[in-house]
Amino acid sequence: MEELRNGERAVLKELERIIEYEFTDKKLLFTALCHTSYANEMNQINRAIESNERLEFLGDAVIELLVCETLYKEFPESSEGEMSQVKSAVASEETLSEIAKKIRLGHFLFLGKGEEKTGGRTRNSILADTLEAIAAALYLDGGFQTVKNVLKKYLDNYILDYISGKKIFDYKTKLQELTQELFKCLPKYKTVENQRGFTSQVIINGTVYGIGQGISKKEAEKIAAEKAVKLILNSREV
Amino acid sequence: MEELRNGERAVLKELERIIEYEFTDKKLLFTALCHTSYANEMNQINRAIESNERLEFLGDAVIELLVCETLYKEFPESSEGEMSQVKSAVASEETLSEIAKKIRLGHFLFLGKGEEKTGGRTRNSILADTLEAIAAALYLDGGFQTVKNVLKKYLDNYILDYISGKKIFDYKTKLQELTQELFKCLPKYKTVENQRGFTSQVIINGTVYGIGQGISKKEAEKIAAEKAVKLILNSREV
Repeated sequence: MEELRNGERAVLKELERIIEYEFTDKKLLFTALCHTSYANEMNQINRAIESNERLEFLGDAVIELLVCETLYKEFPESSEGEMSQVKSAVASEETLSEIAKKIRLGHFLFLGKGEEKTGGRTRNSILADTLEAIAAALYLDGGFQTVKNVLKKYLDNYILDYISGKKIFDYKTKLQELTQELFKCLPKYKTVENQRGFTSQVIINGTVYGIGQGISKKEAEKIAAEKAVKLILNSREV
Repeated sequence: MEELRNGERAVLKELERIIEYEFTDKKLLFTALCHTSYANEMNQINRAIESNERLEFLGDAVIELLVCETLYKEFPESSEGEMSQVKSAVASEETLSEIAKKIRLGHFLFLGKGEEKTGGRTRNSILADTLEAIAAALYLDGGFQTVKNVLKKYLDNYILDYISGKKIFDYKTKLQELTQELFKCLPKYKTVENQRGFTSQVIINGTVYGIGQGISKKEAEKIAAEKAVKLILNSREV
């Protein structure tokens, strides 16, 4: 990669101040902040820049390990099932984008012009992905302890809220809330028994929003509700 | 937890020799080898023993990070999509149970009598889960570098095979092979377009084995095939 420009260096410096960590390899941090749309735009003017997609892939695993380790060590009474539910909730786009907003990550993103115009700077999926890329950059630059030093305090609040039940990851309830808010009606479940157990469809205003398979009616409905919730939340962002 | 028995200590020692790592905390290794069925049996005779389920949860994240880091660092040309596919294939039950067999993990398991009778010692799901628990025990006892020292060489072979295309993770092809072998016929796909894109059913001998949702017909079929493959492989083991 080519040298960083002065304006870019200034952006990195400001973010380093907020996360209280100074990168040895500034280009790692820069790459973590480069959305595909920016990399594409730069490549068109022959500036070789990598997007943050590969870092995001690594960072997803880094954050998951941090969450799993915290749950394992600090909540010894929690079962595998509970830990697994909390992990999904904490390592989700919803949570990670909230943390990204706390460190004002949107402000530091490098975006292409098109993405900028359509509100990419505040889009949850982009913010969550970039936070993952930042986690990977921290990991590669300073090791796992550095990731812990910078990100654990943010994740811990969510872990505690989910473990203590302050936050809800009951998808059937969540779907009900969303449906009432957005469609002014309640979701309906249509569940049939078959060779694989039960198949459940969640129907909102006549449209199937999620299909779930499970060994019980309850499980099939829960899975269908989860899919519907994710579909609705994702489509709201785009 | 109570003290380890002499017979148990001997088992641990033999496994330590094979993996070429000596645990500081022997109880961690012991817990990693204790299947739920053994923990339940011991609890019934008032011996307080924890099963390996919580370690397995942590170990899943440890192995994923090891695979992701290897892909990121050693295959800089691989895209996020490729890395993601290879990660799923390598961190799968199929691969992890193969590695478990290479270190003869089945031989060292602590199983309840019922599980022993029904062939638990050779069951892929149990072997893969135990390998994950071992990864967590290594992580807690010696840190991430210890996990690397012990497990990376095994995982690397699979990573290389998948990246180079020697091993196949094309689920539609895999399903075709399985269906011909087990049902002497080919799978059929029934795909319909709907509000969410496409929904595809894989039908074998008149029975639905998997349902997939996708933004294209191809994607919906691929997901349906993946679900069917997993369903068939899981039901063969039980």
